[in-house]
Amino acid sequence: MTQPVNPPARLLMGPGPIDADPRVLRALSTALVGQYDPWMTATMTETQELYRQVFGTRNDATVLVDGTSRAGIEAALVSLLAPGDRVLVPVFGRFGHLLAEIATRAGAEVHTIETEWGQVFPPSVIEDAVRRVRPKVLAVVQGDTSTTMNQPLDELGAICERHGVLLYSDATASIGGNPLETDAWGIDVVSAGLQKCLGGPSGSAPITLSPRAVAVLDGRRSIEAGIREADDVVSDDPIRSNYLDLAMILDYWGPRRLNHHTEAASMLYAANECARILLEEGREAVIERHATAGRAMLAGVEALGLRVFGDVAHKMHNVVAVEIPDDVVGDEVRGAMLEDHGIEIGTSFGPLHGRVWRIGTMGYNARKDTVVRTLAALEHCLRRAGHVVPQGAGVDAALDVHAAADVHAAADVHAAADVHAPGDVHTGSTAPVGAPA
Amino acid sequence: MTQPVNPPARLLMGPGPIDADPRVLRALSTALVGQYDPWMTATMTETQELYRQVFGTRNDATVLVDGTSRAGIEAALVSLLAPGDRVLVPVFGRFGHLLAEIATRAGAEVHTIETEWGQVFPPSVIEDAVRRVRPKVLAVVQGDTSTTMNQPLDELGAICERHGVLLYSDATASIGGNPLETDAWGIDVVSAGLQKCLGGPSGSAPITLSPRAVAVLDGRRSIEAGIREADDVVSDDPIRSNYLDLAMILDYWGPRRLNHHTEAASMLYAANECARILLEEGREAVIERHATAGRAMLAGVEALGLRVFGDVAHKMHNVVAVEIPDDVVGDEVRGAMLEDHGIEIGTSFGPLHGRVWRIGTMGYNARKDTVVRTLAALEHCLRRAGHVVPQGAGVDAALDVHAAADVHAAADVHAAADVHAPGDVHTGSTAPVGAPA
Repeated sequence: MTQPVNPPARLLMGPGPIDADPRVLRALSTALVGQYDPWMTATMTETQELYRQVFGTRNDATVLVDGTSRAGIEAALVSLLAPGDRVLVPVFGRFGHLLAEIATRAGAEVHTIETEWGQVFPPSVIEDAVRRVRPKVLAVVQGDTSTTMNQPLDELGAICERHGVLLYSDATASIGGNPLETDAWGIDVVSAGLQKCLGGPSGSAPITLSPRAVAVLDGRRSIEAGIREADDVVSDDPIRSNYLDLAMILDYWGPRRLNHHTEAASMLYAANECARILLEEGREAVIERHATAGRAMLAGVEALGLRVFGDVAHKMHNVVAVEIPDDVVGDEVRGAMLEDHGIEIGTSFGPLHGRVWRIGTMGYNARKDTVVRTLAALEHCLRRAGHVVPQGAGVDAALDVHAAADVHAAADVHAAADVHAPGDVHTGSTAPVGAPA
Repeated sequence: MTQPVNPPARLLMGPGPIDADPRVLRALSTALVGQYDPWMTATMTETQELYRQVFGTRNDATVLVDGTSRAGIEAALVSLLAPGDRVLVPVFGRFGHLLAEIATRAGAEVHTIETEWGQVFPPSVIEDAVRRVRPKVLAVVQGDTSTTMNQPLDELGAICERHGVLLYSDATASIGGNPLETDAWGIDVVSAGLQKCLGGPSGSAPITLSPRAVAVLDGRRSIEAGIREADDVVSDDPIRSNYLDLAMILDYWGPRRLNHHTEAASMLYAANECARILLEEGREAVIERHATAGRAMLAGVEALGLRVFGDVAHKMHNVVAVEIPDDVVGDEVRGAMLEDHGIEIGTSFGPLHGRVWRIGTMGYNARKDTVVRTLAALEHCLRRAGHVVPQGAGVDAALDVHAAADVHAAADVHAAADVHAPGDVHTGSTAPVGAPA
């Protein structure tokens, strides 16, 4: 008989998954409860509210899809796009191709625009394409880990609004580590996963839908035979998937709580805890932590004399693509990182396979010690592979970035303290004596 | 800020999910490892072998689908059925309707035969329908929790073989608690879930495919743009789902390990432990434990004067449907079970909603103490609801069944001891002195 799973000690510094926060691991081992237990439905409702805050939205339709982030992408596309509907996908890496592929399988008429890997699209280029294609949906990845690029989304909502287009974004790799404002930016649908900056395991896909997107689903809503009541609607153009039918998933999470799948309770617990951890620290503080760790890793690899791939001004905070020096074999160095130092870094796909390593600083692992440990190990692996690197330069550069961030943060605290000094307590109150507290 | 998830104490004796085995809860909290880490791929391979034993198969194509059991059903149907393909679904409960619904959404030409809820189909009726419809796939639920019935499958493989039909079965509710012999019965594809007799959480769907089923997938195999190599095939009739494309999922689990989704590692750990627990106890012993607990619960509710719904000779071992007496309100008794005793029992769907309670004895909860505790609580809830029940009759009947099973098991051990009595050691050896040990 086999033994219980007993993984080796690893520090996961690739493009995700990363080490889950220990709090999330603990949440996973919580006892199960029936899916219609009042406690369970209350926990589902609470988790919806937590994810509204994570997504920066007031969308009622904010739920989890029970599958990996890819399930969330497919749920969005197969539910929004009826066969023959036009969709525009700006492709700047592997995951843009994935959106196009999933939309094609959903029977949509798929139009793509492409840019070189390592670049993002100026909004004007996307607007030109929207004007030309006149799609029902603009589907765009926010952060594409294959190239590390972070597509600016803040102007796309207004473009879509002008042209009557629904905007969908896959924020799996970016959410939590980079700004994302679902409502303020006018994004109709955003899907995500836990295994990147949210510090959880793969297997649950948070998703949010605007009322406008829900209205599109309403036109295709079906209730399955076996639980259908006499007056329930049955669309003659149902969504092509049952499992990923967001209208049904919303009915399951909504007030009718119509039976669909059996909620994956353990993954719900994990998703709940991921959101709580992020919101306790604060959305802006978490993004700032990712920004600092990302700057430190970037400074570190550059100080080691390595070149960074792509338009660094537009890279995600949480991952960097490092060009593999000509005098080493990429997979050998990566193997030494894993075997000798217990650290996983990533390779890449397609045109970048064998050309770059991808090093992540995300979620629980967006920390000073993990950055420093990774850079120290990389220095040694490069040195032993015969590539000359300046001793200590990577570690020093990273520590300098973190020290500067600490000074900056301390200055912020000091400035805040000046404004609200202890002596100021109650001073600003304008309430008359005797007014209700 | 909200508090960490902290569920109330519950004993889950409904139709599933049930309490996860504490070993599975512990496995869920195991640290993550990268999906291409040698340890991870070895663990995936080991888990495949464990599920071959659970399914009773030598199918190489035995993997997990990252979603609930419904994801496994849809993966099977959308991958096997191209638009226009004919499928025959014998419907004997809600989950038969579900198979038909999912196949319809996959674009298949769906034919159903129906029988009254509470009955199963004689194989001859199914063969007649196969002869008439000439489907590509016969898709049948093994155990349908909505009615508690367990459709005999042992003759269906031969029928399908005679008519050149692929046989798919959804064994989510039955696997582990009732006999299932994938290879011996000639079933091409079986999908399951963890949350019933396997004693785990919902969220992972083990599935197995015969070489004949894999050959069907091969005709529709596609490798997505973004990771495709120059000489890779691209089907012009791809499977309609990317996430649930079993050909791609097999490529991910197979020797090429082509990137698809990011494996839901925590659910993989859970699935691994569920299988280990079952196989350590032994497949036959686990089924026997379910048979005993099921007989005890059946005897108990009958001794309380309650009527059991459906063809009891064909019910699953692990769930019983109890007709709600006319003089009580079903949901009030169910509420009292939950609120006053911490025990969840189930209601049902469609024609049985409000007519029966469904009481499960499955997985970790297929035990004497859980059966007895449930029957004791049910007696009190019925009594307090004003329904006259004989004091202690349910508990006594259940304990009698368990005592008889213990005597039977002891007799078996004794019989085994008679055959291989200690004194017999070496007696039967025919090896000559000096022969290799």
